[in-house]
Amino acid sequence: MFQEELAVTEVETRGGITLPKGFRAVGLHCGVKKTKKDLALIVSDVPAVGAAVFTLNKVQAAPVVLSKQHLAVRKTFRAIIVNSGNANACTGEGGYDDACTMADVTAAVLGVYPSEVFVASTGVIGEPLPIEKILRGIQLAAGQLDEGEHESAAEAIMTTDTFKKVATATFEIDGKTVNIGGIAKGSGMIHPNMATMLGFVTTDAAFDPEVLQSLVKTAADKTFNRIVVDGDTSTNDMLVALANGESGIEPLEPGSEAYTIFASNLERVLKQLAIDIVRDGEGATKLVEIHVDGAWSEHDAVKAAKAIALSPLVKTAIHGEDANWGRIMAAVGYSGIEFDPARLEIEINNASILGPNYTVMLPNSEANKSLKGDFVELVVKLNCAEGNAIVWTCDFSEQYVVINGSYRS
Amino acid sequence: MFQEELAVTEVETRGGITLPKGFRAVGLHCGVKKTKKDLALIVSDVPAVGAAVFTLNKVQAAPVVLSKQHLAVRKTFRAIIVNSGNANACTGEGGYDDACTMADVTAAVLGVYPSEVFVASTGVIGEPLPIEKILRGIQLAAGQLDEGEHESAAEAIMTTDTFKKVATATFEIDGKTVNIGGIAKGSGMIHPNMATMLGFVTTDAAFDPEVLQSLVKTAADKTFNRIVVDGDTSTNDMLVALANGESGIEPLEPGSEAYTIFASNLERVLKQLAIDIVRDGEGATKLVEIHVDGAWSEHDAVKAAKAIALSPLVKTAIHGEDANWGRIMAAVGYSGIEFDPARLEIEINNASILGPNYTVMLPNSEANKSLKGDFVELVVKLNCAEGNAIVWTCDFSEQYVVINGSYRS
Repeated sequence: MFQEELAVTEVETRGGITLPKGFRAVGLHCGVKKTKKDLALIVSDVPAVGAAVFTLNKVQAAPVVLSKQHLAVRKTFRAIIVNSGNANACTGEGGYDDACTMADVTAAVLGVYPSEVFVASTGVIGEPLPIEKILRGIQLAAGQLDEGEHESAAEAIMTTDTFKKVATATFEIDGKTVNIGGIAKGSGMIHPNMATMLGFVTTDAAFDPEVLQSLVKTAADKTFNRIVVDGDTSTNDMLVALANGESGIEPLEPGSEAYTIFASNLERVLKQLAIDIVRDGEGATKLVEIHVDGAWSEHDAVKAAKAIALSPLVKTAIHGEDANWGRIMAAVGYSGIEFDPARLEIEINNASILGPNYTVMLPNSEANKSLKGDFVELVVKLNCAEGNAIVWTCDFSEQYVVINGSYRS
Repeated sequence: MFQEELAVTEVETRGGITLPKGFRAVGLHCGVKKTKKDLALIVSDVPAVGAAVFTLNKVQAAPVVLSKQHLAVRKTFRAIIVNSGNANACTGEGGYDDACTMADVTAAVLGVYPSEVFVASTGVIGEPLPIEKILRGIQLAAGQLDEGEHESAAEAIMTTDTFKKVATATFEIDGKTVNIGGIAKGSGMIHPNMATMLGFVTTDAAFDPEVLQSLVKTAADKTFNRIVVDGDTSTNDMLVALANGESGIEPLEPGSEAYTIFASNLERVLKQLAIDIVRDGEGATKLVEIHVDGAWSEHDAVKAAKAIALSPLVKTAIHGEDANWGRIMAAVGYSGIEFDPARLEIEINNASILGPNYTVMLPNSEANKSLKGDFVELVVKLNCAEGNAIVWTCDFSEQYVVINGSYRS
């Protein structure tokens, strides 16, 4: 009886990033920000296979440089240390030293190797880290690690985010329960190629390192790399996954049914995090899901969808609930893909707006009604071939300008 | 005495697009817009050599298609007919027929060939032209053509522009006075590759057609193709130049001193028009001149400068008078060029903000003062090689969103 109650309590306290077995976490305030939580620590109790994807910006923040180096030399990892409020980017050699010190101190308090630690930072660029505060924070965090502290960790990685981004999946493989937990931060400056986005994923599944890396890369390409807020690409982004095998299953092999189940659940978790990032884009009032169908290739479909998603004219029109299909067509026109404008069709939330041969299907006043509400599904049919893609973005409001004009003041 | 007074009067009435000898123009209201002027006609009294550059958007409005066809088959032209308020874009075969009808009727009332007429349109995409109103307007316009009507023409090509864009140059070649006159419209959606930009240039200099085409292309590449408002590229843009030789000079030969004088004056006129377009960007409060120096090539310098100019994060920071150099560096980082971030230096209005090795030269509060005022000269020194470029843009204000969210309502 007593045992059962304990078990119930355990189920209720685990969640998010600590839903998978053998992970603990915590988030706290260490003083980078004035009062909000600004330091998160995620730990696997046993060595976990690691995988990661990083920003493609030429200017890479010190923690990105360091974490890539760790991934290059190791297969298994024990911890992720993350601060928010300061990006430790464009901070030169001193910034690199600070990132190393974060890994060193995290390793020391956990009794692991520094190269077993991923380091991530997000926040203002070009200012030195308040490293002493962070180091004291790491020591405090190590003492507070808990399976029940997943929410504080999700909160501590936020910058201008207005809500925590958490997603999980639980499923059976070989009769055993497998979990995936993920947290992310985004908001503003979100773009394909990982722009100012941090994502951390834990799982108690087991993998060979190269298999996990391939899975994470593939899932990120369909989710995090298909979201657009304003087109800026950051210096700091990374998505890190840790798989510690504590579910007790065998390492998943590509091609197996179990592998496919895991892959689809991972993609679902990353997709939910990615969409939440878009939904929380600075000043966003509408989530926009852009489908481009019938392109000559998937690559072309992505190109066209991103051109639409990046267009300030399209984004402001959606904000103003103006079904201005001419701007959508113009964006496809300058995306650089081959298509025949006369074949292009547009639907918004299942209402046909534009038919072939530039046929206007609805009067403006009717078409505009399709943009009411906070979700917009925009379907652009090119009617050339079979290349399809989905990209997510948000509208562009006055509030975006207000937030980004005064970010540092 | 009487003669002299007449001469003075003549000087005062000519100007803008009719400053060069042998050109007349007029702008009037024909009914595409509710009350504002919406039709402009520019005519050369004698056949004028023509040159033009057009939008690179795959979706090209009917008047662009038609004008390109005319340029392909003829060397000399007599008129440019322009309507504003409706872009005649994405209007299918009917739209093409309407553009042809505009050329036909203009030709008929002037007694010239239809292929001697350039046709341009700007405004809302995807709605049929009110062609009957335009045709009546063309007939009226032909009767009102005058050397003194250059201002009404400049006004009639405007859409959301808040002021007329006019630039002129007068200089001597071989002891004869040569004039260049130009008008333009822009506002919103302005981007390299001629986005929603109309420019019309007249000159009484004389040229062989291919020489004028090369001159116009070169000058446009350094001016109209180096301005950015929001990165959208329109379906309708064109820059048309007419040279009628009425100054009495011989056709200018590449390499001659006279040619160089003309080229520098043409570039100056186009630069003034281009900068006025940026200054009048929707919601713009600051003109931003971005210099990228020391890139590996001019091509790289343009790429980096345009990435900065296109970044909503940079543009909103400038609007908020926040000298956020990290965003500038991040934009260079994702522009795709090769450079060493540690060598990058930034100056704003002659104040050194960032030195080599990420050295912050001024406290934020001081650096931000460099952004006061309505002109921002931003110099980014890459310190790699000799590639330099200048790009012009504007800040990004709440007002941009307001204007573009409700353009059609």
